[in-house]
Amino acid sequence: MERSIIALLHGPDQPGIVAKVAGWIHDHGGNVLHADQHLDRQENIFFQRVEWTPQKSNDLRSESDDFSTFANKDLGMKVRIALSEDCPRIAIMVSKADHCFHDLVLRVRSGEWNANIAGVLSNHENLGSAAHGYNLNYLHLPVSKESKQEIEREQLKWLSSHDVELVILARYMQILSSEFLEQVGCPVINIHHSFLPSFAGAKPYHQAYQRGVKLIGATAHYVTEDLDEGPIIEQDVARVSHRHGPSDLIEKGRDLEKLVLSRAVRRHLQNRVLDYGNKTVVFD
Amino acid sequence: MERSIIALLHGPDQPGIVAKVAGWIHDHGGNVLHADQHLDRQENIFFQRVEWTPQKSNDLRSESDDFSTFANKDLGMKVRIALSEDCPRIAIMVSKADHCFHDLVLRVRSGEWNANIAGVLSNHENLGSAAHGYNLNYLHLPVSKESKQEIEREQLKWLSSHDVELVILARYMQILSSEFLEQVGCPVINIHHSFLPSFAGAKPYHQAYQRGVKLIGATAHYVTEDLDEGPIIEQDVARVSHRHGPSDLIEKGRDLEKLVLSRAVRRHLQNRVLDYGNKTVVFD
Amino acid sequence: MERSIIALLHGPDQPGIVAKVAGWIHDHGGNVLHADQHLDRQENIFFQRVEWTPQKSNDLRSESDDFSTFANKDLGMKVRIALSEDCPRIAIMVSKADHCFHDLVLRVRSGEWNANIAGVLSNHENLGSAAHGYNLNYLHLPVSKESKQEIEREQLKWLSSHDVELVILARYMQILSSEFLEQVGCPVINIHHSFLPSFAGAKPYHQAYQRGVKLIGATAHYVTEDLDEGPIIEQDVARVSHRHGPSDLIEKGRDLEKLVLSRAVRRHLQNRVLDYGNKTVVFD
Amino acid sequence: MERSIIALLHGPDQPGIVAKVAGWIHDHGGNVLHADQHLDRQENIFFQRVEWTPQKSNDLRSESDDFSTFANKDLGMKVRIALSEDCPRIAIMVSKADHCFHDLVLRVRSGEWNANIAGVLSNHENLGSAAHGYNLNYLHLPVSKESKQEIEREQLKWLSSHDVELVILARYMQILSSEFLEQVGCPVINIHHSFLPSFAGAKPYHQAYQRGVKLIGATAHYVTEDLDEGPIIEQDVARVSHRHGPSDLIEKGRDLEKLVLSRAVRRHLQNRVLDYGNKTVVFD
Repeated sequence: MERSIIALLHGPDQPGIVAKVAGWIHDHGGNVLHADQHLDRQENIFFQRVEWTPQKSNDLRSESDDFSTFANKDLGMKVRIALSEDCPRIAIMVSKADHCFHDLVLRVRSGEWNANIAGVLSNHENLGSAAHGYNLNYLHLPVSKESKQEIEREQLKWLSSHDVELVILARYMQILSSEFLEQVGCPVINIHHSFLPSFAGAKPYHQAYQRGVKLIGATAHYVTEDLDEGPIIEQDVARVSHRHGPSDLIEKGRDLEKLVLSRAVRRHLQNRVLDYGNKTVVFD
Repeated sequence: MERSIIALLHGPDQPGIVAKVAGWIHDHGGNVLHADQHLDRQENIFFQRVEWTPQKSNDLRSESDDFSTFANKDLGMKVRIALSEDCPRIAIMVSKADHCFHDLVLRVRSGEWNANIAGVLSNHENLGSAAHGYNLNYLHLPVSKESKQEIEREQLKWLSSHDVELVILARYMQILSSEFLEQVGCPVINIHHSFLPSFAGAKPYHQAYQRGVKLIGATAHYVTEDLDEGPIIEQDVARVSHRHGPSDLIEKGRDLEKLVLSRAVRRHLQNRVLDYGNKTVVFD
Repeated sequence: MERSIIALLHGPDQPGIVAKVAGWIHDHGGNVLHADQHLDRQENIFFQRVEWTPQKSNDLRSESDDFSTFANKDLGMKVRIALSEDCPRIAIMVSKADHCFHDLVLRVRSGEWNANIAGVLSNHENLGSAAHGYNLNYLHLPVSKESKQEIEREQLKWLSSHDVELVILARYMQILSSEFLEQVGCPVINIHHSFLPSFAGAKPYHQAYQRGVKLIGATAHYVTEDLDEGPIIEQDVARVSHRHGPSDLIEKGRDLEKLVLSRAVRRHLQNRVLDYGNKTVVFD
Repeated sequence: MERSIIALLHGPDQPGIVAKVAGWIHDHGGNVLHADQHLDRQENIFFQRVEWTPQKSNDLRSESDDFSTFANKDLGMKVRIALSEDCPRIAIMVSKADHCFHDLVLRVRSGEWNANIAGVLSNHENLGSAAHGYNLNYLHLPVSKESKQEIEREQLKWLSSHDVELVILARYMQILSSEFLEQVGCPVINIHHSFLPSFAGAKPYHQAYQRGVKLIGATAHYVTEDLDEGPIIEQDVARVSHRHGPSDLIEKGRDLEKLVLSRAVRRHLQNRVLDYGNKTVVFD
């Protein structure tokens, strides 16, 4: 496998960015493997994902730094850099439902994704033995109204001490406080079990049943302070009919949640997602 | 083609309904072609669609009447009857957009549906020549705040004088008053250009763009006094990405609107839809 | 949970079957929960799935037997009976790929399906430790050209001694001989990693890549002597593009295979599938 | 609307192509609106679609020529150029079925596509009056075994004299000879009413019914000498069940055919499709 550098840029549009980026890489002896860009014409923001193999494959880190400086200084772009060999550390937060948990863990274990699971955090003990069966750390901290603030502090400490680079809420049934989100220092991806913005909040399948919709959905999004309002990464739907009661929707929804969450995490781990405002750019 | 009777029943569940209905038909020498039923266990309401060929195919009307009496009196069910040879008269209400209009008219003309178009009603003159090109009546009545009440009265008079049995709002951009809906005396199907309940109200594609959803939708529903809250008959979605601006969503949405509206109308014309509360039962 | 009886009937059509079946159940004090029927008009074969709660819920077995006799003798129908409380024993056959294996096991363990896993049979040892981690029997029997006949005999002996009622080929990469299929005495469901009849045989994803298709598929079917020609239970597809090489198709296909196989097994376990000729009737 | 140039390049990969193309445009004062590229790693072929607004918008043709020379000479690439203002002349070939015909014509008339319809060619007179209703030329030439060669010559003469740049087979039920395809001098897009490579040849819906598939499909492809073997541009599927007989598949298929053909034609008219070997690259 070739070693490559991936850069995600965004910033105010200006003529010639594509040429300048490609020129810089070419001048440094690199070879572009993929390049994809997008211009939000309403906001006039330019986005690019570019992946290249540098001339000297032993010095990716220093070439990345040079590129960052160039993109910042010369192009006025914000830059995020990743290396093809990166293997980010992720934490999975769960409550009682285990379908997304197993799905995520099995994908990492099978080598489908380039990632390490630092551990599993939960407000319940239900999934502890499953986590241990996978040889994963399991931090069980029950949350009550009174204890929430303190528990979140412990969770943050754990995440920080394990250098976690991505938190995945795999049907974690607690709302994270804005303090937590400010301090977590890495992206947090959640799976919401409805086709947002429909049926935000609690019991979305029951809401869907009451409304008599003919499709149910699931939405994976980055978590922000505004509950269920964060930038959407991926959504999908499944057909239902009058024959399906709330428990059928819940069962059907499980497969949807697994798929949608896994697609969002895959895209994130492949460094294909840029979020801005309450939206995302997801490069194919 | 065999001549057949279709009955749609619904009412409080009780033991033995299926047997009694099938028994009645069998005793009268009929042969069941299709039968489908549903029990809403939360509301304890029983629904059935049953289609049969009677022994004497020359006397469908009187056998239908006998069956209705039986289902009403003996089973306590509400009944709606249709004959396979029925060819209901429909009216299409439009504004300026013509994609659903052409789609509906071409389906009727090609013989795909068993229906007659009584005419086209519009608050604009844009589609007049297209309607005349199809040899269809075109009732052009501009609507203003002041004239709305009177125009609706004229529309009702027209619908009534043409014995219209189904009104289709094919992107008709006026809200029908509750008076209109009370008096129209037949079902009204609307296509809303979003995945309801998301983005009810005006400019749903712009709302969808603002929210950054990854799928757009369309919803066909029976019109009730509560705007965009009526019983949903059919929904579908199409994938979009950050590359799609509002005008792309509008273009992509047109195909979705045509498909979803036509599926809903087909199901309705096949007498497969029962509405109750704000939901529908749609038999396959 | 109410205890109920499910009967699957099929045979030559005749007038009044629906009435007679419903009448029999009603006369015996039973209450129909669901009934669905289908008439293949080309072959004139009638199919029905009917589920009812009998009057005396303590005597399901004897009522089932009575019904079978009635349906056989009086209606000339072949009958298959299941009880809502049945928990069939299934065997999973695997080779090296583990995605369908984990998916099936986790569904059974979570209680999503009413089934017991009798054990896992494999021609490789790869999944042995995973099976043991789930506390499942693992019968590892390497297959070579020379040993195949004997190994199949051992497998049959194992299946028979464990009273297996359904065999699932979860990416089992050996072709079962016609002798095996004749003697296995229960249905065998396979997942083929293409949209059959396209790309039957070996390496379907490579075939799909070579042909440049824009969708890949997966097909779950009952296994018959004709390779990849058995009655199809379920199919689905996923979108691909020129960007996807063979290994991308394989990765994308894994999710498809899991979904399609699990839907087929669910329908089978719910006693919703009837096969005849090389087709199936799958009641919703 | 800005005037822009679109270039489609392909040829043997080499380092720095992206930089050189972007550099050329930048050096000439142009501004890249979109750029998308693809590398077929198995064949080592590089593909690019790049769209830019030139500095002087009054001289698109000469800048295009300069770019072509550059891409040919300096990069060794084959180039196809289009201008945003191009409005290619298309011919539609039909037999008796009219659904794709109406769909295509209405899309052009509504301004959804930038194209002119030069006329309609048919081996039957059925759609003549519909074509005249749209004020379109209708060349009716009945085809028999004996007359085929001569008729094709007349068709070619007509296409050539009308400067047709794209031929669409909208359910045209004649096989075009290899002589016709050699001489037509422009791409020919066909809609096949199955999910190729399944059910190539005649009566695909009947084949699909016989096989008992659970999804039917449609495929739009460029026509080559090998019947139903040309490069696939777009495919899609729709769900069917045991309830659907051949005539139901035909009806359901019509909507699929319209959608798939229109998506393929749209992509082609947007200059997003490159074909090579028997495959296509379709840029989003």
